[in-house]
Amino acid sequence: MKKMPRFAVVLSGCGRADGSEIHESVSALLAIDKAGCTYQCFAPDVKQAAVINHLTSEKQDESRNVLTESARIARGEIKDLRAFNVKDFECIIFPGGLGAVTNWCDFAEKGVACTVESSVSSVLNEAYDNGVVIGAMCIAPVIVAKVLGKHGITVTIGNDKTVAGKITQTGAKHQDTAATDACTDEENLIVTTPAYMLATSVKDVFAGAEAMVKEMIRLAQ
Amino acid sequence: MKKMPRFAVVLSGCGRADGSEIHESVSALLAIDKAGCTYQCFAPDVKQAAVINHLTSEKQDESRNVLTESARIARGEIKDLRAFNVKDFECIIFPGGLGAVTNWCDFAEKGVACTVESSVSSVLNEAYDNGVVIGAMCIAPVIVAKVLGKHGITVTIGNDKTVAGKITQTGAKHQDTAATDACTDEENLIVTTPAYMLATSVKDVFAGAEAMVKEMIRLAQ
Repeated sequence: MKKMPRFAVVLSGCGRADGSEIHESVSALLAIDKAGCTYQCFAPDVKQAAVINHLTSEKQDESRNVLTESARIARGEIKDLRAFNVKDFECIIFPGGLGAVTNWCDFAEKGVACTVESSVSSVLNEAYDNGVVIGAMCIAPVIVAKVLGKHGITVTIGNDKTVAGKITQTGAKHQDTAATDACTDEENLIVTTPAYMLATSVKDVFAGAEAMVKEMIRLAQ
Repeated sequence: MKKMPRFAVVLSGCGRADGSEIHESVSALLAIDKAGCTYQCFAPDVKQAAVINHLTSEKQDESRNVLTESARIARGEIKDLRAFNVKDFECIIFPGGLGAVTNWCDFAEKGVACTVESSVSSVLNEAYDNGVVIGAMCIAPVIVAKVLGKHGITVTIGNDKTVAGKITQTGAKHQDTAATDACTDEENLIVTTPAYMLATSVKDVFAGAEAMVKEMIRLAQ
């Protein structure tokens, strides 16, 4: 019997507009658990770029921490991303949500000229260099491209031409993919799925998460 | 072909320790969507009883609003519970999380002598009186018992003897149920599932949510 891979899941807060998209994050955790694998959540211990009122979409005049808010999705079972040890995992997933492009890096503001938070870029490079299978959902593939585009990786964010164009500026390739499917880069061990970049309901997000996790397990074995 | 019921989902914030349990809430939404039904989220527009740091379990010296934080789980698509119209729904679900017994009522502090927030008690009574099927997960059945125990309803919170004892003080009956099953009160149109009162992983929470939603659809048709 093949050994089941161990998953790390990296979060960027708790909520689509200023952190990790909640449906995507839970879909990833559920897909991993249903496949018979284990997971450990991580998040960078940094201040959120903003706190957005999810009812009004307005910015709130307050401060929240990415690790502390991510702990809501992880039910408290979460570690500072600086504690990530590449030897403990065969797979690592980055769910989407605007936190991916505001808290992990400032792509939302600066595009491909963005700066990536140091623990996130370290973990992405370390995972790639050690053959850990990398998964990313929704908008999160842009940060994977920013850090690993130099290797000529292939990712998807669905079919948005503007974002796809920015991805190609990093050296990465973009492949249009349906919401319920996953885009697999066999050579570079990277699997991505569009999630809410294309999905119109949570069941499609979950179907995409299951497709991604299934491919990640295949590549890890 | 039978008409698919329309679901309302009532939230109590965003996070197991001071709001709605996130895995339970998303499992309910996913189970509804996978079954081919629609949902509309609601939450009372009240201040949270507390803000708990989910990393340290300590109380934070700040204030958050139940409706605003619930909007994170609902992706902004949420209404004040006072706008609930019983004619628009055949089913209504109350996910768990400590917000159920701290924001919807003060059961966590006062037990069966608790006071229930007015929009929550109104909606529960109105749903019951109009034959809307009521679903509740985890600890949320205690508030259903507090409001509707007078009708001799049957619910489950798993197999915790202390909480079950408090439920029977309301006039309701308690039925021990496994994490992946649902307890159905055919006569009173109430379906409950233990979720994280018993479940040890998100896949069991989702299995329980699917069992509950399946029973709710059967009762509504």
